[in-house]
Amino acid sequence: MTNKLVEQLSIVTDSKIVLVVIDGLSGIPNESGRTELETANIPNLDALARDSTCGVTDPIAPGITPGSGPAHLSLFGYNPLEYKIGRGLLEALGIDFPLEYGDLAVRGNLATMDKNGRITDRRAGRISTEATIQVCKLLEGIEINGVKVFIKPVKEHRVAIIFRGNGLDDALSETDPQREGLAPLPVKPLGPLAASTAGIVTKFIEEVKKRLASSHPANMILLRGFAKQQKLPSFHERYKLRAAAIASYPMYRGLARLAGMEILPVGERLSDEFECLRQNFDKYDFFYLHVKYTDSAGEDGNFEKKVAVLEDVDAYIHGLLELNPNVLIVTGDHSTPAVLKGHSWHPVPILIHGKYTGKDDVVQFSEKECAKGGIGRIPAMQVMSLAMANALKLTKYGA
Amino acid sequence: MTNKLVEQLSIVTDSKIVLVVIDGLSGIPNESGRTELETANIPNLDALARDSTCGVTDPIAPGITPGSGPAHLSLFGYNPLEYKIGRGLLEALGIDFPLEYGDLAVRGNLATMDKNGRITDRRAGRISTEATIQVCKLLEGIEINGVKVFIKPVKEHRVAIIFRGNGLDDALSETDPQREGLAPLPVKPLGPLAASTAGIVTKFIEEVKKRLASSHPANMILLRGFAKQQKLPSFHERYKLRAAAIASYPMYRGLARLAGMEILPVGERLSDEFECLRQNFDKYDFFYLHVKYTDSAGEDGNFEKKVAVLEDVDAYIHGLLELNPNVLIVTGDHSTPAVLKGHSWHPVPILIHGKYTGKDDVVQFSEKECAKGGIGRIPAMQVMSLAMANALKLTKYGA
Repeated sequence: MTNKLVEQLSIVTDSKIVLVVIDGLSGIPNESGRTELETANIPNLDALARDSTCGVTDPIAPGITPGSGPAHLSLFGYNPLEYKIGRGLLEALGIDFPLEYGDLAVRGNLATMDKNGRITDRRAGRISTEATIQVCKLLEGIEINGVKVFIKPVKEHRVAIIFRGNGLDDALSETDPQREGLAPLPVKPLGPLAASTAGIVTKFIEEVKKRLASSHPANMILLRGFAKQQKLPSFHERYKLRAAAIASYPMYRGLARLAGMEILPVGERLSDEFECLRQNFDKYDFFYLHVKYTDSAGEDGNFEKKVAVLEDVDAYIHGLLELNPNVLIVTGDHSTPAVLKGHSWHPVPILIHGKYTGKDDVVQFSEKECAKGGIGRIPAMQVMSLAMANALKLTKYGA
Repeated sequence: MTNKLVEQLSIVTDSKIVLVVIDGLSGIPNESGRTELETANIPNLDALARDSTCGVTDPIAPGITPGSGPAHLSLFGYNPLEYKIGRGLLEALGIDFPLEYGDLAVRGNLATMDKNGRITDRRAGRISTEATIQVCKLLEGIEINGVKVFIKPVKEHRVAIIFRGNGLDDALSETDPQREGLAPLPVKPLGPLAASTAGIVTKFIEEVKKRLASSHPANMILLRGFAKQQKLPSFHERYKLRAAAIASYPMYRGLARLAGMEILPVGERLSDEFECLRQNFDKYDFFYLHVKYTDSAGEDGNFEKKVAVLEDVDAYIHGLLELNPNVLIVTGDHSTPAVLKGHSWHPVPILIHGKYTGKDDVVQFSEKECAKGGIGRIPAMQVMSLAMANALKLTKYGA
């Protein structure tokens, strides 16, 4: 509700906001008794925390572990329980596919099927991305009952499939039997509006089988995570911001695109991202900069690696401050404690740096210290309101 | 809303959760400058707080003083503004009456009425429970327009009355005039759906008067707190937990029953409750253990007694930890400061102990210290989400 309020109150100014999202930022102590953030030598982030107001956020709500999609939507100021983004959409967004509202997207695996119709390899021997590109060429131009189908390579055996047409619905069952030796499952409608879409997808699979009959090892496709693109108010509509996204990892570019941000071309290294920010700093008034490898390290249970990535990020803080953004926010989208080897529900530290934030007593950028900060504990969905307010981009509510 | 999310995300695991609810736990300083918790010598709870993550909860919202019903619903993860449980229901639940959805329950006082129809004693001389049992026998088998009425002894002059039939409504005025020398008030419908129920209750009162005409001193009944039983998602439905309640005081057993918990038979002493927990520890994966006498002492304005009960509870913490629950939560349902001689709105300390809670700097289990803890200040309604998350019983939300 308050997020729609922000839409009414937002105004255009010259001030600039930088939102640095360190994926899976926070953690819990390992056997050393310290978290990754507490272990890392991050003097610049600590100094920034001392000069900022700090707090912690709940990506969704206390106790809820979010996926990357809802966690990012929340940080961008969209209610993640209202706007749902299924896996298929994320996959399509991540390869920079120009989605349109109403598109139905789904993740696909190229797979190997024997002559009896049983799956012998759910990943077609993890064929190379190059080989998948060739297979996708065999599948170009499929159209079923007026619905156009796009099949695009992602990585190795993974593809994204986008159905474009009227009246598509994503309440569909998945076809991946999850085990070798079984036949693919039929696509079934899971809701009253999905029957015709189920029919279209079934015909599509038949067409794929036909076209890939002599393609080995990829002679079949398995579908998971049907998701339909819904309308999301863009950053421009909601915040009146010219917003740019700097993210080396496809899925996060996709999420930013969904919010109507411009996607800046960028290399894979952290240095590329911060250099991209520097080069484009004059051209936009909002920047979302995404750091992926903290999360990957956490997912791998690699505590030391996550510490190292945090220290890498720390090295860029000084240069970032030299750009003199009016508001700089450093936070995460969710926690990924190495101890848990996955996303978790723990609150996420946040610091907001700017001329008008006020101050608190936080002396270190860590889970424990930020929990005692001036922001307190807030839903991540309110971060953009604070960003906008501190950039003096929100007018008064009521007389 | 997020509580319904928990229902989607909850999974069955072997981990065990213990929720210790110290009724009316928190307080405010008396003339000594210290609260009951700060005065009590509770080394085990303090040590547990040091080894846990701590915070404070709002049972309903800042400033709202809750009754026991809504405060407990909130702790159990039900929105207390959505699910309302009137006094009549609590009374019926507290005597282990097997309520059914749609039942209308009300608290009754046996009273004495003179020949002019005026109440001379609102409690019939506080007749014994034994005498009330006899009176209730005279009132067995009443049925009005197809609605069955059950009258059950509670304690002394107090009875619970349950109306069972179709279309009952609880928007009814009370009959207790609250003063001697006045006639009982008529039952009036307070809402558009309550007219027929008001007629039934009026006829019921007439029948009671007739049957008790020669019963002295209990020749009348006064009715307060009409409440209809609504469907509540059970702990099994919502959390997939096999949940057990250990509560020596009837009303809390009733609340737990409403949430679908199994009620374990237990004696009246604190030692009985903790021994009951120990004996049943293998059989369930969630335990609600209720400590009543902190609240009673607070209600009596007996600061020292409340301190003593807290110290009693402290003595059982060591044994509780020996059971090695995966998640142990110690908190209260609300505050009952002896200074105020009643429930209050003050936030309630909470500690969550487990392998994955993370740590904070709290060194004492007190109102003031917990307010600085890692949990921050959360609605009590989110406690079960944290319990479930820390027991690794919630899957991820979204991809």
